[in-house]
Amino acid sequence: MNGNRHAILIAHDPIFRVFGDRHVARLAAIGTLLNTAPLTDWNDPQAHELLSRCTVICGFWGCPPIDDTTLRAAPELGLIAYAGGTVKGIVGGGVWRRGIRVTSCAPANAEPVAQFTLASIVFAGKQIPWRINAPDPFAFAAARTIDSNVGNYGSTVGIVGASLIGRRVIQLLALFDEMSVVVYDPFLSDAEAAALGVRKVGLTELCAVSDIVSLHAPSVPETRHMIGGAEIAAMRDGCTLINTARGALVDHDALLSHLRSGRLFAMLDVTDPEPLPVHHELRTLPNVMLTPHAAGSEGRELARLADRAIDEIERWVAGQPALYEVTQEQLTRMA
Amino acid sequence: MNGNRHAILIAHDPIFRVFGDRHVARLAAIGTLLNTAPLTDWNDPQAHELLSRCTVICGFWGCPPIDDTTLRAAPELGLIAYAGGTVKGIVGGGVWRRGIRVTSCAPANAEPVAQFTLASIVFAGKQIPWRINAPDPFAFAAARTIDSNVGNYGSTVGIVGASLIGRRVIQLLALFDEMSVVVYDPFLSDAEAAALGVRKVGLTELCAVSDIVSLHAPSVPETRHMIGGAEIAAMRDGCTLINTARGALVDHDALLSHLRSGRLFAMLDVTDPEPLPVHHELRTLPNVMLTPHAAGSEGRELARLADRAIDEIERWVAGQPALYEVTQEQLTRMA
Repeated sequence: MNGNRHAILIAHDPIFRVFGDRHVARLAAIGTLLNTAPLTDWNDPQAHELLSRCTVICGFWGCPPIDDTTLRAAPELGLIAYAGGTVKGIVGGGVWRRGIRVTSCAPANAEPVAQFTLASIVFAGKQIPWRINAPDPFAFAAARTIDSNVGNYGSTVGIVGASLIGRRVIQLLALFDEMSVVVYDPFLSDAEAAALGVRKVGLTELCAVSDIVSLHAPSVPETRHMIGGAEIAAMRDGCTLINTARGALVDHDALLSHLRSGRLFAMLDVTDPEPLPVHHELRTLPNVMLTPHAAGSEGRELARLADRAIDEIERWVAGQPALYEVTQEQLTRMA
Repeated sequence: MNGNRHAILIAHDPIFRVFGDRHVARLAAIGTLLNTAPLTDWNDPQAHELLSRCTVICGFWGCPPIDDTTLRAAPELGLIAYAGGTVKGIVGGGVWRRGIRVTSCAPANAEPVAQFTLASIVFAGKQIPWRINAPDPFAFAAARTIDSNVGNYGSTVGIVGASLIGRRVIQLLALFDEMSVVVYDPFLSDAEAAALGVRKVGLTELCAVSDIVSLHAPSVPETRHMIGGAEIAAMRDGCTLINTARGALVDHDALLSHLRSGRLFAMLDVTDPEPLPVHHELRTLPNVMLTPHAAGSEGRELARLADRAIDEIERWVAGQPALYEVTQEQLTRMA
């Protein structure tokens, strides 16, 4: 370290620009920003020279893996502040052995997805997606009696996965009266469920009792097609499946067989494959709303990530605990 | 009154069924339900006979006006529990002279509109309506840099009208970080604005500084076309206008001239005229999302109204203060 000046390296995907002028100014107030051009290969001779001086790596989507070779080139590195969600695949075991602090913006990255999910739940409950631009001026009439299943009151939302996003959705839904939330998550304890104010259920029961099922599980080999034929068949007529997680969680062939008949509704922000072929059947069904993997951080929401990452740098420089520190044990469970 | 048994009359619009079996059971636990068939004309001889015995009128949309003649026929009437929003046009001056308690479910009726508005704001901020089912698989790419205006972080929402709905929207938006709310309401005091955590501004300024403008003002002669040519011209490029209030608030010709060019976006749950003619130009624009006056209470949300009206009857019977009492002074200001 050069006195109390910190040397910050930004390692990011050149496709996405996440640090705006305001963020660069914030970083400049903390230390010296070593690079402005994207840095995507640690083995580049210039990268090696910058690594030799840096105390902080501020990472983002596309940050190349920080393995032992990289670490050896960065003897003064004390903080990896990642401006994205998961650091899986980015930090190697050497980081923990060196005692380098690793932080992520997982909560900030969860926020737009949780907000998008909340909006999707409200619209699903009121069956809005299926009435947008409806040419029939009386499209509303059928919804106007207490007998219909339309409306967000006394309904049940099933949250699959008590992840950061799942928990934030639960927290946001708590604002709405008379909405029950059931959760499936094999890692959620009864005490945690009680603290969240939700009922823990099995996955098939969740599908059977929910008016809306929203997926917030990680995509790992064990969760592939976790929403399969049996789970989809268990869903009640008129149920809406919301997927803002990953397409691989859902068996799309099984889903299609229940969408074709109009029995279920689906709001899919992610699919498998993704993007969907232009002539894919899911694009043709009136009870399917497709959005282009848009729930996550976009545009200004990238500024939230940058702000929270810089918060972490400021806290580290000031000797304060991290807002969101990633531990080795946590990382093995991360999506 | 027959001992401590109360006699309850339901006066409602026959088109909408709002009281389900659960509600009838709740009413039966309080007193005698005098009618089950819709009651829409107080001058009907049967209605007169029922009025002579009733202590409570539980009203709903379509309830005929309770004027002095009606009141004379109902000497034991002590409570008008209205299961809808405004009782304007339903209760006459005689009600106040008699000291009859009048309650409404305005907050419960505001809830679904506020939830719908919250969802609309989230989707507008992320430009979701314009990307639904987009055939271009890369519809998302443009949104992925910090330079775009997409995303709900650091954006400004303009709330026109600090009504019950407007205030509830403000309360819900407080959950989201880094979203600024400005409000235009000539009846809102500085102290109230401060308590709501919002900045009070003029209407033109609101239009000029907001990324999203949402209308929550009453439709009265003074508010007709309050969003007119000047206000619409003041809106910044890319601004989304959300109208869940009444079509008459907006000069649709002026709006159309800014929608045609693609400069603005609009999410319109109400229009003028309503319903829109099938071939109306608003139906043809890709930057307009139309929904069929669906933000308000529908389906299960009618059960919320019934529940809150029955809560009021229970409280009156128990000698408790009302949850939401309507006063003569309030009524003159109501939409």
